[in-house]
Amino acid sequence: LGNFNGKLKKSNMTDAATNMRLKLPITCFILEIILIILFGTLVQYDYETDAKEWHNTSHQDYENDFYFRYPSFQDVHVMIFVGFGFLMTFLQRYGFGSVGFNFLIAAFSLQWATLMQGFFHGMHGGKIHIGVESMINADFCTGSVLISFGAVLGKTSPIQLLTMAIFEVTLFAVNEFILLSLLGTKDAGGSMTIHTFGAYFGLMVTRILYRPNLDKSKHRNSSVYHSDLFAMIGTVYLWMFWPSFNSAITAHGDDQHRTALNTYYSLAACTLATYGMSAITSHDGKLDMVHIQNAALAGGVAVGTAGEMMLTPFGSMIVGFMAGIISVLGFKFLSPILEDKLKIQDTCGIHNLHGMPGVLGAIVGAVTAALATTDVYGQGMADVFPAVADGSVNATKQGGIQALSLAITLGIAVLGGLIVGFVLKLPVFGTPPDTLCFEDSVYWEVSLMRPERDHRVQVHFIYISNHKHVCEIMCNICVIYVAVFIFLT
Amino acid sequence: LGNFNGKLKKSNMTDAATNMRLKLPITCFILEIILIILFGTLVQYDYETDAKEWHNTSHQDYENDFYFRYPSFQDVHVMIFVGFGFLMTFLQRYGFGSVGFNFLIAAFSLQWATLMQGFFHGMHGGKIHIGVESMINADFCTGSVLISFGAVLGKTSPIQLLTMAIFEVTLFAVNEFILLSLLGTKDAGGSMTIHTFGAYFGLMVTRILYRPNLDKSKHRNSSVYHSDLFAMIGTVYLWMFWPSFNSAITAHGDDQHRTALNTYYSLAACTLATYGMSAITSHDGKLDMVHIQNAALAGGVAVGTAGEMMLTPFGSMIVGFMAGIISVLGFKFLSPILEDKLKIQDTCGIHNLHGMPGVLGAIVGAVTAALATTDVYGQGMADVFPAVADGSVNATKQGGIQALSLAITLGIAVLGGLIVGFVLKLPVFGTPPDTLCFEDSVYWEVSLMRPERDHRVQVHFIYISNHKHVCEIMCNICVIYVAVFIFLT
Amino acid sequence: LGNFNGKLKKSNMTDAATNMRLKLPITCFILEIILIILFGTLVQYDYETDAKEWHNTSHQDYENDFYFRYPSFQDVHVMIFVGFGFLMTFLQRYGFGSVGFNFLIAAFSLQWATLMQGFFHGMHGGKIHIGVESMINADFCTGSVLISFGAVLGKTSPIQLLTMAIFEVTLFAVNEFILLSLLGTKDAGGSMTIHTFGAYFGLMVTRILYRPNLDKSKHRNSSVYHSDLFAMIGTVYLWMFWPSFNSAITAHGDDQHRTALNTYYSLAACTLATYGMSAITSHDGKLDMVHIQNAALAGGVAVGTAGEMMLTPFGSMIVGFMAGIISVLGFKFLSPILEDKLKIQDTCGIHNLHGMPGVLGAIVGAVTAALATTDVYGQGMADVFPAVADGSVNATKQGGIQALSLAITLGIAVLGGLIVGFVLKLPVFGTPPDTLCFEDSVYWEVSLMRPERDHRVQVHFIYISNHKHVCEIMCNICVIYVAVFIFLT
Repeated sequence: LGNFNGKLKKSNMTDAATNMRLKLPITCFILEIILIILFGTLVQYDYETDAKEWHNTSHQDYENDFYFRYPSFQDVHVMIFVGFGFLMTFLQRYGFGSVGFNFLIAAFSLQWATLMQGFFHGMHGGKIHIGVESMINADFCTGSVLISFGAVLGKTSPIQLLTMAIFEVTLFAVNEFILLSLLGTKDAGGSMTIHTFGAYFGLMVTRILYRPNLDKSKHRNSSVYHSDLFAMIGTVYLWMFWPSFNSAITAHGDDQHRTALNTYYSLAACTLATYGMSAITSHDGKLDMVHIQNAALAGGVAVGTAGEMMLTPFGSMIVGFMAGIISVLGFKFLSPILEDKLKIQDTCGIHNLHGMPGVLGAIVGAVTAALATTDVYGQGMADVFPAVADGSVNATKQGGIQALSLAITLGIAVLGGLIVGFVLKLPVFGTPPDTLCFEDSVYWEVSLMRPERDHRVQVHFIYISNHKHVCEIMCNICVIYVAVFIFLT
Repeated sequence: LGNFNGKLKKSNMTDAATNMRLKLPITCFILEIILIILFGTLVQYDYETDAKEWHNTSHQDYENDFYFRYPSFQDVHVMIFVGFGFLMTFLQRYGFGSVGFNFLIAAFSLQWATLMQGFFHGMHGGKIHIGVESMINADFCTGSVLISFGAVLGKTSPIQLLTMAIFEVTLFAVNEFILLSLLGTKDAGGSMTIHTFGAYFGLMVTRILYRPNLDKSKHRNSSVYHSDLFAMIGTVYLWMFWPSFNSAITAHGDDQHRTALNTYYSLAACTLATYGMSAITSHDGKLDMVHIQNAALAGGVAVGTAGEMMLTPFGSMIVGFMAGIISVLGFKFLSPILEDKLKIQDTCGIHNLHGMPGVLGAIVGAVTAALATTDVYGQGMADVFPAVADGSVNATKQGGIQALSLAITLGIAVLGGLIVGFVLKLPVFGTPPDTLCFEDSVYWEVSLMRPERDHRVQVHFIYISNHKHVCEIMCNICVIYVAVFIFLT
Repeated sequence: LGNFNGKLKKSNMTDAATNMRLKLPITCFILEIILIILFGTLVQYDYETDAKEWHNTSHQDYENDFYFRYPSFQDVHVMIFVGFGFLMTFLQRYGFGSVGFNFLIAAFSLQWATLMQGFFHGMHGGKIHIGVESMINADFCTGSVLISFGAVLGKTSPIQLLTMAIFEVTLFAVNEFILLSLLGTKDAGGSMTIHTFGAYFGLMVTRILYRPNLDKSKHRNSSVYHSDLFAMIGTVYLWMFWPSFNSAITAHGDDQHRTALNTYYSLAACTLATYGMSAITSHDGKLDMVHIQNAALAGGVAVGTAGEMMLTPFGSMIVGFMAGIISVLGFKFLSPILEDKLKIQDTCGIHNLHGMPGVLGAIVGAVTAALATTDVYGQGMADVFPAVADGSVNATKQGGIQALSLAITLGIAVLGGLIVGFVLKLPVFGTPPDTLCFEDSVYWEVSLMRPERDHRVQVHFIYISNHKHVCEIMCNICVIYVAVFIFLT
C-alpha cells in the first residue's frame, strides 16, 4: 500500500508548480480591475443603446439594430460557450477543463476584445461606442482565441490561456483593422480574421510549446463513449447556428438572408462529404467520431468570406463539399505528419477544422469577389462591395485585396503565435507536467469521494482512477478466475 | 480464451455484410453530386435573398421575411438536430447512431426536400426559388423522415436510412402538394403532413422489416441512467421550441403570435397529463422516463393543425391534455399489442408520440375549421382560411377538406411505407444482424481501448462489453464471496 | 442473502408513504382540470394575438409585439427548462428528479401564473388578456418557483413541490402586484420579484422542513464527474441567455438593447471574479465546480433591477464583479453556517446564487434610480421611470420606493415561506425518508435491469446500487487481494 500512497501523492496532490492558489486569483483580479477601469474611462453606449441619444432622433422602435441582430447574437453566443466548450469535452478526463477554461477565457476575451476592437475601429470622439454589433464582434474575436485553445487543450494552465488571450485578442484586432478598415476586405463570417488567424496562431503556439514526452499522457488523450456524446452537443450547436454566425454582422435585409442560406447549404453538403470520407478512410468502413465532430463543420468555415456574396446555393454546396473532404483527409493523413515531422501537437485538430477550410474560404472569397458584376448584384452591390459600387476599385482588384488579406492574416498569425508561444514558455505559468496532461484533477477538484469517507477507500479510489488500465486487467482476470472456478465446480 | 476470441471475432470485427467501407462513401458522394448538379440547374435565390431583386423594389430592411421567420427557423433547426437527435440517445449502446445518423439523414433530407418541395410548389419560371421559408419547409420535411427513423432506430444501416429518406421526402412532397396546393388544406404545424405521415410511413417500413429474432439484441434495447439524461436534452428542446415549430410558417402578425401561444398552453397541459398517467399506469406509482421523454410532447403534435386557428387557450389545453393521456396509454397498452400481434417493432414508440396525436390533431383541426365564423375571425379570416374568406368554400366544407386530407395522408403514408419497406429488404444495404441491433460498434469506431494497449486487455474488454450481463453476475457473486469471507473472519 | 433481500425490500420497494400511484395522478388531473376550467371562463387572446382584434386596427405586421419579444421569450424558456433543469443535475443520483420535477412544476406553474398574474394585473373587462408578454411573465414567475425548488431539491415529493408551487405563484403575483402596480417599482429582470423572493421563500420552506438526520443520505448529496458536466449545460445556458432574461419585458428599442448589454458585461466580470475566488478559497488552489456552476451566474441576478437603467457598462461590471465575490464567499463560509446554526439545508446553495445577489441587485437598483437625471436619460426617462418623467415622484423618491420594495419582498417571502413550509410538513405528501433523499429510485423507475432478467442478478444489482460505497470497498479489497496474489506468485 505504501507504493500506492506514493503514487497517490505524486499524481493527486498538486505540485507547487501547478498550484493556482495565488496565481489565478491575482491574475483574474488584476485583469478584471484593469478592464473595469478602462471601461469606466473609455466606453459609452452607442446611440441605439443610450436612452437620451435614441430618443433624441425620430425612430420607430423596430428600427433599432437590436431587432436585426440580437437573435443572431444569441446564436453566436451559444456557439462560443456551448459549441466550442462542449466540442472539446471529447477527452475522457478533461471535461471540466474544456467547458470551464473555455468559459473563463471567453468571459475575459469578450471584455478585452470590446476594448481592443473599439480602440482600432470603434472610437467616436475619444470614446468607444458599444451596442449589439460590438457585442457580436467581441464574441467573434473570442471565437478566434477559442480556436487556438483547441490546439493547446489539455497542455496549458489557465494562466497560460489568459496570457495567450491577452495577446491574441490584441493581434486579432490589429489584423482585423488592417483588413476591414485599411484594405476594405470583406470577411463577414471571418474565414480569414477568425478561423485562419485563430488556427495558425494556435498551431504556432503549440509548436513552440512542443512536448517531446507527451506520450506519457497518451492514455488520457482519447475519448470514451459518454465524452463523445457530450462533444456531439458542441458539434451540433456549432453546425446549427453557423448560418447565424456568418450572417450576424452582414448588412441588413437580403445580405443577412442570403448569408444564412448559403451557409445552411454549404454545411449540409459538407456533412455528406464528411460521412463518406470518414467511412472510406478507415480500415473497416466504420465512422470515426473525430471526423463527424469536426469535419462536418468545415463547410461553415469555408463560406465565412463568400457567404454574403452572390455565391449561389450551388457554389456554396461545392465549397462545403470540398471543405468536408479536405478536412477528413487532414485528420487522417496530415495531422500525424504535423505531429511527427513538424512537432505540432494539435489536440483538437484545429488545422483540419479551421486552418485549411479557413484558407479555402479566403480563396473562395477572393475568386467570388473578383467575379462580381453589377449585372448580378444590381444596387445590392453597395452593401456587399461598397468600394466596387462607388467605383473606387473594380471587382478584380477587390479579389486581389481579398487574396492579399489572406497573406497578411497568415503572416500576423504565424509571427504572433511564435512570439506568444515563447512568452508562454516562461516557467511562471504553472503548466502541467508531461505526465498530467489532459487531466482535470490538476486544476479542478474532482469529486471522486467525499472527504468524510473512510480514508482507505479514498486511497483505493484514487489509485484506481490513476491506474485504471491496470485495475481493469486485474478485475478482468479476477472475473475470469471466478468464472473458471464456477465452471469447474 | 479461445471461446472468447471466437465471440470477439464474431461480434467486433465487421462482417462483410455490414461493412460500409465502399457502400457509404459511394452513396454519399453520388447523392451529393446529384444534389449539387440539380441545385446548379434548378435553384435560385428568391427575391428577398437576391441582392439585385431585393434592391430593385422599394423596401424597408425590416420588411424582409428573414426578420419574421429566422428566429423560428433556428428553433426548428435545433429541434431537428438536437431534439430528434438526442431524444433517441436513450438506448444504452446507440448514442452515436442516434445523434450521428440523425445528423446524416437530416443533412441529406433538407437538401433533397428543397428540390422536391420546390419542384411541387416553389417553381417560378422553371426555377426553384428559395429563402428562409423554403429552409423551414425543408426542415419540416426532414422532421418527417426523422420520425420514421425513430421506428427503425437501431435496426437499419445508414444506407437503408438514406434510401428511406430519398423515397420518403419525395412522397412527403407529393402528399404536401395534394393537401396544401390542390385541396387548400391548412396544416401549418404539420399534424398531418409531418407527424401522421412520418409515423405511419415509418410504422409500415418497420412492419416489413420485421425481425422475429430481435430479442437476441433485447439486452441492448433499453436505457441506462446517463443515456436517459441525454435523451432528456432532446425532449426538453423539442418541448420548448414546439411553439416556434407550429408558428414558423403561419402568416405574419397575429397568426404567428397566436399559434405560439396555443402550442405553449397545449404542451403545458399535456405535461401534467403525462406525469399523472405515468404514475397511475405503473405498478408502484413510479414515473417512467419513456413517458416523460415522449408523451409530454404529444401536446405539440396535437395542435399542429389547429394551432393557427382561433382554438383559444382553453381549447388548446383540452387538446394537449387528451394527447398526453392517449400517448401514455399507447406506450403502456398499445405498443406491446403492435409488437406482438401486428409485428410492428417501433423502437421509439413513434405511434404514441406522432401517430395517434397526429391523427388527433388532424381531427381537432377539421372540427375547428368547420366551426370557423367571421364573427370570431373578422378580417383575419383571410390569413387563416383564405378560401373561406373569399367565399369559394364555406367553413363546413373546409372542415371536410381537412378530414379528407387526413385520409389521403394515411393512405399515401401506409402505401408508401409498405413499398419502401420492401425496397429496404433488398440484401444490399448492409443491415445489421439480429444479434447486433442497437449496437454502435457495428457502424462506428467505439473507443474502448487504444490499439497500442496490451492485446489481452482489449480482448477482455470487448468480451466484457459484449457479455456485460454475464460479467455482472460473476462480479456480483465475486463481491459477495469476498464479503462473506470477510464477515466470517 | 436474506439480509440483502431485506435491505432490498426496504430501499427499493416503495413504502406506502412515498407511493405516488394515486396521489400524483389525482393531484395532476385535478389541478389541470381546474386550470382548464378557469382558462375557459377567464382567459382571452389579447389584441395582438386575436385574429379579429389585430385586423380591426391598422398595423404593419412587424409592429406586432411577437417580433419584439418572441426571441427573448424563447431564450427565457430555455433558461427555465434547460437552465434550471440541468443546473440541478449535479447530484449523482438525482438527475431524473432534477430535470423531471423541474419540468413538471414548471409546466404547472406557467399555467397557474398566467391566471394569478392576469388576475392581479392583466384584467380587461373581467377577462385576462394574454400574449407573448404574459407568457414571459409566466415564465418569470415559474423561475421563482424553480429557485425555491433548488433549496429543497432531493428532499421533497412531487406533490410537495406542486403544493409549494400553488402557494408560491400566488404570493409571487401578490408581491409583484404591490411592487409593480401599486408602488411603481422598476424590476424588469426581477432581482427582487424573482430572485430575492424565490430565494428567501425557498430558504424558509427548507428551514421548516429541516431534517436533523439528513446525513443518512450524505453519500448521495454530491456530484460525480459526468453529473457535473450535465450541470454545466444548465449553467452555460443560464449564463448565455441572461441578457435576454433581463431585457425580455423592458420597453422596446434602446431599453431592451441597453439591458442586454449591461447584463452581458456584468456576467463577464462576474465570471472572472468567480474563478479567482474559487481558486483562492480552496486549500490547494483547485477550482471548485460548485462555484463555477453557480457563482458565475450571480452577475445576471445582480443587474436584474438596474440593467434597464443607465447603469453604464462600467457600473454593470462593478456590480457583476462584486456579485461573483459575494457568491463564492457565501458558498465557502456562509452555507455551512446556515446549515449548522440556522438549520437551513440549502441543497443548491440558492442563497448564494439568488439570495444575496438578488438583495445586492435591489440595492444597486435603488441607488441607480435615486441618481437618475434628465440630463442622462433625456426623453428616454419616460420608458425607464415613467413616474419620474411625468413628475409624480422625483428620482430620490423612486430610489426610496425601490428600497421599500426590497423590504416588502423579503417580508412576503419569509412569511410566505414559513407558512408554506408548515403546510408541506403535513404527513400526506409522500415525502422521502431521511435515508432516501437525493435518490431517484424513490419516485422514478430507474432502469438498472430489465424485468425479464434473472432475478438474482437484479437483487445483486439493486443491492449494489444501494450500497455502492460498501461494494466499492469490497471490490477494491478484492482487486488488491488478487493483485497481491499475482505479485506473490
